[in-house]
Amino acid sequence: MIIDGVPSGIPLSIEDLQIDLDRRKPGQSKIVTQRKESDQPEILSGVFEGRTTGTSLAILIRNQDQRSKDYGNIKDLYRPGHADYSFDAKYGFRDYRGGGRSSARETTVRVAAGVVAKKLIAQAFGGSVVGYVWQVGNVRANVPDPAAVTLSQVETLPDGTPNIVRCPDLTAAAAMITLIDECRKAGDSIGGAAEIVATGLPAGLGEPVFDKIKADLAKALFSLPAVLGVEYGIGFGCVTMKGSENNDLFTSRQTEAGEPRIVTRTNRHGGILGGITTGMPVVLRAAVKPTSSLPMPQETVNQAGEPATISTKGRHDPCLLPRLIPMAEAMVAIVLADHWLRWQGQKSFLEN
Amino acid sequence: MIIDGVPSGIPLSIEDLQIDLDRRKPGQSKIVTQRKESDQPEILSGVFEGRTTGTSLAILIRNQDQRSKDYGNIKDLYRPGHADYSFDAKYGFRDYRGGGRSSARETTVRVAAGVVAKKLIAQAFGGSVVGYVWQVGNVRANVPDPAAVTLSQVETLPDGTPNIVRCPDLTAAAAMITLIDECRKAGDSIGGAAEIVATGLPAGLGEPVFDKIKADLAKALFSLPAVLGVEYGIGFGCVTMKGSENNDLFTSRQTEAGEPRIVTRTNRHGGILGGITTGMPVVLRAAVKPTSSLPMPQETVNQAGEPATISTKGRHDPCLLPRLIPMAEAMVAIVLADHWLRWQGQKSFLEN
Amino acid sequence: MIIDGVPSGIPLSIEDLQIDLDRRKPGQSKIVTQRKESDQPEILSGVFEGRTTGTSLAILIRNQDQRSKDYGNIKDLYRPGHADYSFDAKYGFRDYRGGGRSSARETTVRVAAGVVAKKLIAQAFGGSVVGYVWQVGNVRANVPDPAAVTLSQVETLPDGTPNIVRCPDLTAAAAMITLIDECRKAGDSIGGAAEIVATGLPAGLGEPVFDKIKADLAKALFSLPAVLGVEYGIGFGCVTMKGSENNDLFTSRQTEAGEPRIVTRTNRHGGILGGITTGMPVVLRAAVKPTSSLPMPQETVNQAGEPATISTKGRHDPCLLPRLIPMAEAMVAIVLADHWLRWQGQKSFLEN
Amino acid sequence: MIIDGVPSGIPLSIEDLQIDLDRRKPGQSKIVTQRKESDQPEILSGVFEGRTTGTSLAILIRNQDQRSKDYGNIKDLYRPGHADYSFDAKYGFRDYRGGGRSSARETTVRVAAGVVAKKLIAQAFGGSVVGYVWQVGNVRANVPDPAAVTLSQVETLPDGTPNIVRCPDLTAAAAMITLIDECRKAGDSIGGAAEIVATGLPAGLGEPVFDKIKADLAKALFSLPAVLGVEYGIGFGCVTMKGSENNDLFTSRQTEAGEPRIVTRTNRHGGILGGITTGMPVVLRAAVKPTSSLPMPQETVNQAGEPATISTKGRHDPCLLPRLIPMAEAMVAIVLADHWLRWQGQKSFLEN
Repeated sequence: MIIDGVPSGIPLSIEDLQIDLDRRKPGQSKIVTQRKESDQPEILSGVFEGRTTGTSLAILIRNQDQRSKDYGNIKDLYRPGHADYSFDAKYGFRDYRGGGRSSARETTVRVAAGVVAKKLIAQAFGGSVVGYVWQVGNVRANVPDPAAVTLSQVETLPDGTPNIVRCPDLTAAAAMITLIDECRKAGDSIGGAAEIVATGLPAGLGEPVFDKIKADLAKALFSLPAVLGVEYGIGFGCVTMKGSENNDLFTSRQTEAGEPRIVTRTNRHGGILGGITTGMPVVLRAAVKPTSSLPMPQETVNQAGEPATISTKGRHDPCLLPRLIPMAEAMVAIVLADHWLRWQGQKSFLEN
Repeated sequence: MIIDGVPSGIPLSIEDLQIDLDRRKPGQSKIVTQRKESDQPEILSGVFEGRTTGTSLAILIRNQDQRSKDYGNIKDLYRPGHADYSFDAKYGFRDYRGGGRSSARETTVRVAAGVVAKKLIAQAFGGSVVGYVWQVGNVRANVPDPAAVTLSQVETLPDGTPNIVRCPDLTAAAAMITLIDECRKAGDSIGGAAEIVATGLPAGLGEPVFDKIKADLAKALFSLPAVLGVEYGIGFGCVTMKGSENNDLFTSRQTEAGEPRIVTRTNRHGGILGGITTGMPVVLRAAVKPTSSLPMPQETVNQAGEPATISTKGRHDPCLLPRLIPMAEAMVAIVLADHWLRWQGQKSFLEN
Repeated sequence: MIIDGVPSGIPLSIEDLQIDLDRRKPGQSKIVTQRKESDQPEILSGVFEGRTTGTSLAILIRNQDQRSKDYGNIKDLYRPGHADYSFDAKYGFRDYRGGGRSSARETTVRVAAGVVAKKLIAQAFGGSVVGYVWQVGNVRANVPDPAAVTLSQVETLPDGTPNIVRCPDLTAAAAMITLIDECRKAGDSIGGAAEIVATGLPAGLGEPVFDKIKADLAKALFSLPAVLGVEYGIGFGCVTMKGSENNDLFTSRQTEAGEPRIVTRTNRHGGILGGITTGMPVVLRAAVKPTSSLPMPQETVNQAGEPATISTKGRHDPCLLPRLIPMAEAMVAIVLADHWLRWQGQKSFLEN
Repeated sequence: MIIDGVPSGIPLSIEDLQIDLDRRKPGQSKIVTQRKESDQPEILSGVFEGRTTGTSLAILIRNQDQRSKDYGNIKDLYRPGHADYSFDAKYGFRDYRGGGRSSARETTVRVAAGVVAKKLIAQAFGGSVVGYVWQVGNVRANVPDPAAVTLSQVETLPDGTPNIVRCPDLTAAAAMITLIDECRKAGDSIGGAAEIVATGLPAGLGEPVFDKIKADLAKALFSLPAVLGVEYGIGFGCVTMKGSENNDLFTSRQTEAGEPRIVTRTNRHGGILGGITTGMPVVLRAAVKPTSSLPMPQETVNQAGEPATISTKGRHDPCLLPRLIPMAEAMVAIVLADHWLRWQGQKSFLEN
């Protein structure tokens, strides 16, 4: 991974990167894939004496536990739900090992980039991004105030043990774990949805008309594997609403400094109006399909179009959601960091 | 509007542009805004002797019926659900007339660009894009085969009169019209969802990892005003599905030329795997919020943060969906055209 | 022309635009083409109550004196030195009127954009850009201090009449006019070079490694028609220099505020080191070929490759330099404005 | 280095990369720096079974002989002619070792990318790029036909030993070596110029108005360290020419297949008209300043602006030209490859 345009002066260490990489890592709990990857990053350039230099930041994470033999038998077959066929159609051939380039292994470095982005937005404007599992199958979390959810709640149970499913509603979390475990035992998988919340945002991020913040956030989340839907604020819930019900009314709130600050009473608009942040929390949800690789046999065809049966021997996640959380947080943080940097031209000029 | 990169040789006339512009035009029926805009385009450059020249295509559509006085009273107020506040926060001031730059007037030229894109994809690979209203409030259309819906069904009723709500399920269409009319009379508005279907696509469109076709399509749709959610294929429906239920199985179908063609039996994947088209129809849905401008009084604040009451005197759509259809089609066609052009480098090289 | 990303709050009027447009206009003196174009701009969007709004700025300048009949006879012929053949090769056909898209008419809106950029850099950091004719044929100006040349010197003679050749060395200016006039009478044309100087720059503009300020400035100047070479600072003069002669030594100068400021004693580096501005004046030169269109007959071929003779009946500049000056200034100002805006992300973060 | 958009199916090995890397490598002859770097590349992704896969191509080349102690004494000093001051001004601090990010070490991976680009243009359209040293100090090569120069002539003398200065005019080459050697012994350095020639090009590469092929080629060459000027075709020589002398006349030549092909009789236009290739050889020249790092003492200031003396202890090239050749070839090949890929959209559409 190479990131261009990282400002100078961000403290950055291997340890910083490792925190979120470990949240994404395979083998971290019984409900995720049991592949072994240490996911240890090496910073190749862009950091000097512990701080970013403003020049290209290059980070390398090598694959380790890639059992090519796990994939030899699928070399000529098109796995249902996978990119095998579309890659062949586009590129004429493909690296069939572990999904090759369409493998979710590529999200490792996104998570590393997300760490940099999170540090940037924290240092630049006190922003933070927290994601959690919102729904798995029919089990939906009850999260009264998305903006109040903390990283600690997402990662750790009250007894100090890991919150392996990353859902802050503990009753739902338990039910999700049971459901995922059932799917795993059945050789099947299950879909779900993530909610990602960004707080501490200034009003003003987003570049109409094409680079609205909602457009870039959606693109970023849709660029992740397995994401089939994205919504923000009330999202698809708006379909059945009337304008009089849906509009968030503006009001004025006293800041700590005693100045009036314009806010909305409710946040159905998910912190974005006209494609620009309003300063209210940005709340996004992403729908994630059930893992396509299944141990159970599925019908398919080979490259010649002849019928075949496939069962994926590789070790796969019975549910993608727990490990998707740091990826989704990363993509949101990256977009916010990019837009903050981009906004400074307009902002500096205005304040000149 | 200026489009760079349009290939030479596309026949293009004012009349071509006018067809979709008229589908978007205000005042076209009783269920849309009664503002008057002729929306007549002028081609300023890029066309010579009726065909595109390959150079920048510039099209101008002037505003006509902009009653600035309709907006004078909202100059200092923040309309709920609108971009007034976020524009002020970002730019320091705003053009308050008609929503200024955040007005949906800007979508006029997107529709014109969409006409060019539709012609490009038709000529390049026989592709077409058709959109329709899928849901308004609680009324959802029943569309057994999205890929079979024709432009004619969307635009015209069996008796030859216009299908003013642009829903191919005629029973639902009637109920939608009733519902929209009720909202209009109540000084209120109603949300809805559009479904957009692209057919005739080659397998191979989309550029992993960041410019997946699903990511660019979502960005394009989210760049439209009032879109709060986008999904493709089974979309949010995947949340409750198991992998064994969700995976579309590959099979082989005989083409007219008698050759085997690999397809999927079902299309829950919405024509996209690994961010690349599979050749199956691409099916997208967008959630559209109820119009924010309401004739009924709403509480808000002025620029100083003081309480105020606002009621929008301008003439607004009680439901945005009927006029959004050509906009959504345009954005989808533009993305497909861009990706087709971009893909030709890879494709030409492969076929060399 | 549409410019995205112009900050809000720049005062902008038709009159502002007209100043540089008139410097570029045909028919302004006896040594330029006698075509008649009023070049009156219309601001279509992006300005409200006399200031830019931060949203897309659209400016329209219509062609007027395009005598298509001047070009009818060259429809099937390839004019030497022109883009006729390469356009046909690329696009399959071309708009042959007035050079179509390869006509230097397109530089009109670049000049308008340059006005916006000049205002931006003046307001943002007190920067200014002045260009002048440096050489015509064998007549080279003697300009001891490029950074001291004023717009007034370039535009006006001591007696108040226009400096029609735009050379601040008045002896050279007179000789250039004589030379251009001789070429015009002979039905021929003559080449030359422009020098463009940007002053008042902060140290820090430029984005290594690919978007070095020298790289973007060169691209911008090379994007102008007829430019065959670009150099900055000592430029090609460095070829015969030793390092010990060429290096500009750093020293410290007291600012008006009494603080030390690091500068170089000489400016062979043209204000750029490592692709980043040093705060010294940026000095660029562009080589401009003699006008290709000639009234005298020239041998060529037609589209079928058959021999033909051509003499261009259109009214052309005997020397491109006088009218190129505002274009070159515009391109330099645009690049500086873009880089200043882009730099603010890094700068704001650093100063946070 | 990561390259996105490389088509699938290009055979690529470490050995392929090593050829040009060795041409750029330090220590290759007595007239270049004696630093030791093996410059062995590792292909991290994007190649499978010896061919590119169409997905991101990542190549890693590690630094080895970076003697940080060589640079400790310049930590607080601004080396004349170097980017030390401008980096400090922009980023607040810098990695002072070996020039940090402004070190020409970064050109290593450009050369690797150039290998990929050269293979692409060879396979796609039979194109090739050859560069050579055109001038060092006052010694200018006599190269009657730039398009006839071969890589073999540039690299190898008639007796089979290396042509260490990479000049195909052997008399000039000998004089250049003598001059460089004198400068080296004197603790000084010398400037020069490179000529780069691309042949086998189709007519049609280049995207007016801003991405003209001449503009992108110039940007690419100017993005290299130490390049102060770029020209193509007759370049700055056009300044003193008349149109009647300068215009290249079109004529028709029989191809091997017996078809007429339109060419020019001369090539002062350097293979580019209207910013689009004409099919004639593209001929570029770049002016390269003398190495700024000098063993001889030079006056400067430290970060506080206080006077100091500096003499660079590191081992530096007395003349940059011999090692610049593969870098310049790489940048030209990359631009040509990019433009060929980009052009295929237009081309495929036209041929549809």
